[in-house]
Amino acid sequence: MSTPPDTDTAPDQRALDRFAAVVGSAHVLTGNRIGPDYHHDEALAGTPVAPRYLALPATAGETAELLAAAAAAGIPVTARGAGTGLSGACRPAPGGLVISFERMAAVLEVDIDNQVAVVQPGVTLAALDAATAPYGLMYTVFPGELSASIGGTVGTNAGGMRAVRYGVTRHNVLGLQAALPSGELLRTGGKLTKLSAGYDLTQLIIGSEGTLALATEITVRLYPRPAHSVTLMAAFADLAAVMAAVPATLRTGVAPTILEYLDTVTLDAISRAQELELGIDPGVRAAARAYLVIGLDNRERAPLDTDIDLLGQLLESSGALNIYVLEGHSARLLIEAREKAFWSAKAAGADEVLDVVVPRAAMPAFFDRATALADEVGAVLVGCGHAGDGNVHMGVFCRAEATREALLRRVFTLATDLGGAVSGEHGLGRIKTAHFTAVADPVALTLMRGIKHAFDPAGILNPGVILEEKVHA
Amino acid sequence: MSTPPDTDTAPDQRALDRFAAVVGSAHVLTGNRIGPDYHHDEALAGTPVAPRYLALPATAGETAELLAAAAAAGIPVTARGAGTGLSGACRPAPGGLVISFERMAAVLEVDIDNQVAVVQPGVTLAALDAATAPYGLMYTVFPGELSASIGGTVGTNAGGMRAVRYGVTRHNVLGLQAALPSGELLRTGGKLTKLSAGYDLTQLIIGSEGTLALATEITVRLYPRPAHSVTLMAAFADLAAVMAAVPATLRTGVAPTILEYLDTVTLDAISRAQELELGIDPGVRAAARAYLVIGLDNRERAPLDTDIDLLGQLLESSGALNIYVLEGHSARLLIEAREKAFWSAKAAGADEVLDVVVPRAAMPAFFDRATALADEVGAVLVGCGHAGDGNVHMGVFCRAEATREALLRRVFTLATDLGGAVSGEHGLGRIKTAHFTAVADPVALTLMRGIKHAFDPAGILNPGVILEEKVHA
Repeated sequence: MSTPPDTDTAPDQRALDRFAAVVGSAHVLTGNRIGPDYHHDEALAGTPVAPRYLALPATAGETAELLAAAAAAGIPVTARGAGTGLSGACRPAPGGLVISFERMAAVLEVDIDNQVAVVQPGVTLAALDAATAPYGLMYTVFPGELSASIGGTVGTNAGGMRAVRYGVTRHNVLGLQAALPSGELLRTGGKLTKLSAGYDLTQLIIGSEGTLALATEITVRLYPRPAHSVTLMAAFADLAAVMAAVPATLRTGVAPTILEYLDTVTLDAISRAQELELGIDPGVRAAARAYLVIGLDNRERAPLDTDIDLLGQLLESSGALNIYVLEGHSARLLIEAREKAFWSAKAAGADEVLDVVVPRAAMPAFFDRATALADEVGAVLVGCGHAGDGNVHMGVFCRAEATREALLRRVFTLATDLGGAVSGEHGLGRIKTAHFTAVADPVALTLMRGIKHAFDPAGILNPGVILEEKVHA
Repeated sequence: MSTPPDTDTAPDQRALDRFAAVVGSAHVLTGNRIGPDYHHDEALAGTPVAPRYLALPATAGETAELLAAAAAAGIPVTARGAGTGLSGACRPAPGGLVISFERMAAVLEVDIDNQVAVVQPGVTLAALDAATAPYGLMYTVFPGELSASIGGTVGTNAGGMRAVRYGVTRHNVLGLQAALPSGELLRTGGKLTKLSAGYDLTQLIIGSEGTLALATEITVRLYPRPAHSVTLMAAFADLAAVMAAVPATLRTGVAPTILEYLDTVTLDAISRAQELELGIDPGVRAAARAYLVIGLDNRERAPLDTDIDLLGQLLESSGALNIYVLEGHSARLLIEAREKAFWSAKAAGADEVLDVVVPRAAMPAFFDRATALADEVGAVLVGCGHAGDGNVHMGVFCRAEATREALLRRVFTLATDLGGAVSGEHGLGRIKTAHFTAVADPVALTLMRGIKHAFDPAGILNPGVILEEKVHA
């Protein structure tokens, strides 16, 4: 992607001097010196925007001072981690300052006895995984893109495939240090898994997409790495049969680490893209319309075998055409390919990706009605998603923007009517905020405006994300 | 306990008429017609207060209308569930209205496919347990007192013994309907385990102790009931050895359902009180100073045996004097007795109970220093608690109120300095709010005041709980 640099207005020299005084002039950029990567994230829709300023703080204190300076100058601020978001939450506001956390990327502590890690926001999931592995521990939030920063995952409340077992970001972040527009630093939570002492500011900041406070230090929960794992893949003649097998699977009491569905278009696409050979017999491949993927892990091998037997029988009686038990290399390939489903959709020319969430038992109804809505306008929806969580990922093929936006509004309204919401894990960003404010409970929106005002009275933090540009409490 | 009825001021007749118009005159009481149970909860400290009004709504709509009427008249409102709280959060404000949810006590739905239940706030944990048992499902929050109402547990973010495995209330409540002081009803979350669509109002209301909004409908997550369980009890020569065994236990990857410690005073007290015979040999009993209790459950029996072997070896090498494997009746008795530890402390004449939380690895330091602080003033601390969560329950024996309050302030400051907080699960209520506002981060308190103002601009909801009486945003 390329964008014209922001040349409409010259930088505010006083603000620029102030930013430089905080982080050093080498760490403040303007105009053409700001590379095009900083103009966008990975969202498919929308247009990149060049920020007017880019600042790279090295400490929490510098971050807070940058916010105070921006607030004084009325400059909108957008925080940026690794830029892997899918909703445009780190796409800059016009004329704004981007604060990028690439210089705050240290794993500060892996605390084995408390089973937590303390990290700076720019640490990637891959780096944290590498830092915890030697201790036999892991951070369980795996949104697929391991180059994502922890700060970014806090912003969007990222989920991923293992959420069905371990929960999403909000269940695994125990404490924060965060910078406020007032220039103050806030501490919330700690190395604590339970806490009943005032309003939970940790939970409020998680998922706030850089609109309330910027996390400058994050305490995350770690779990022991299980030694044994296995992946079951079951082929089904239709998606409804897959969906019926999901509640039955969870009712057994087996707690899968992964519980995903893929439609055949998606499986074929990721198979081709990743040159994946799963050994599916041609007859099954011809008859299959959808797949259920179940990941299991355990400290011991024997219970896994018991689980495989139990689920094998259950899937067979649920109408599976065939069941494949994948271990080691092929299991890893499948899961990695599934993690790359977004890239497959992008390569296939998808115009947008959704991650609507509905109660998991409402998934069949959602698919039927969403497909009918797409058919009406000649659009195509294909996808995969987190079957255990009701989190539906869909590639939307519909080139005309006005038609697509109208379709999305109807799809989001449908999800809301079914008891769901616009996004399960990608967040709203600049792409879906207008849809969200249109379909959300107005009573909830009023409270959210009040909360926004309490944190950010001048409205400098990522204006236009989650709530409309100007918020009046 | 007995209190003089509130006779200082006559009820505001206009407000009373308005309340009666909402719920019917049979469901509004004043003066002596309000029984003494409504003057307090189970907190040991503090003095009961008679409310001026008691109203019993039958619906969410009535609850919201009561709030609007109270806001119009400037009457403070305290919500009441079963009155089993330990921090005085449902102790009425002088001249105030108590809204009791005893008429809103229906389990509205047990949804098997989505594994959730939808309940009214007055439903007790015991009633929900009975309603879910036939489906092989359970609500996993067990704070010990099963006569507690779900609404109350939402208010305090209740935890309990199984939190080490299943999390606390905040991890198990997926959605709310709540009444606001504006007279509006709010819907948050839903039958959804993941959600990234705006600020998480569900999480904000959980643990807010009736100061932001009153939950009128609660959607909770259910889990399959495991078929097999076993309890290990290990005797140790000192508490430090117990504490050292805790991280080692969790590092194995065995995920205990229960991980509790008891000091000998507490074990003896609950043994006597409950006439509990655990078969501890006299030699061990004489040498033991603390016990570790580990609950394990599983869908299958065989993995339990593997876990017992592994943990048995670990506990032995951690210096356990003896290890007892309890099953069936004796295991149930021990757990039930542990659940009643509060009543044992009360019967023994404790003047206060604490539930400070610290990082679990900081528990030994906390015990040492807290005991030293108590020794200095001739007070005694005895206890038990959630070892896996760092949640320390202590009976405080110190009759003189001023001495005790000064000691508590020092203990809470100590906990805060160790990275912990005033309460892990009991909440602040009227008893601990002043301590909380004294030791908490002032930056956090300012934000909490802003949040309070956004929800409750007139300040009618449980004033004086969590924050000081008058909040100016």
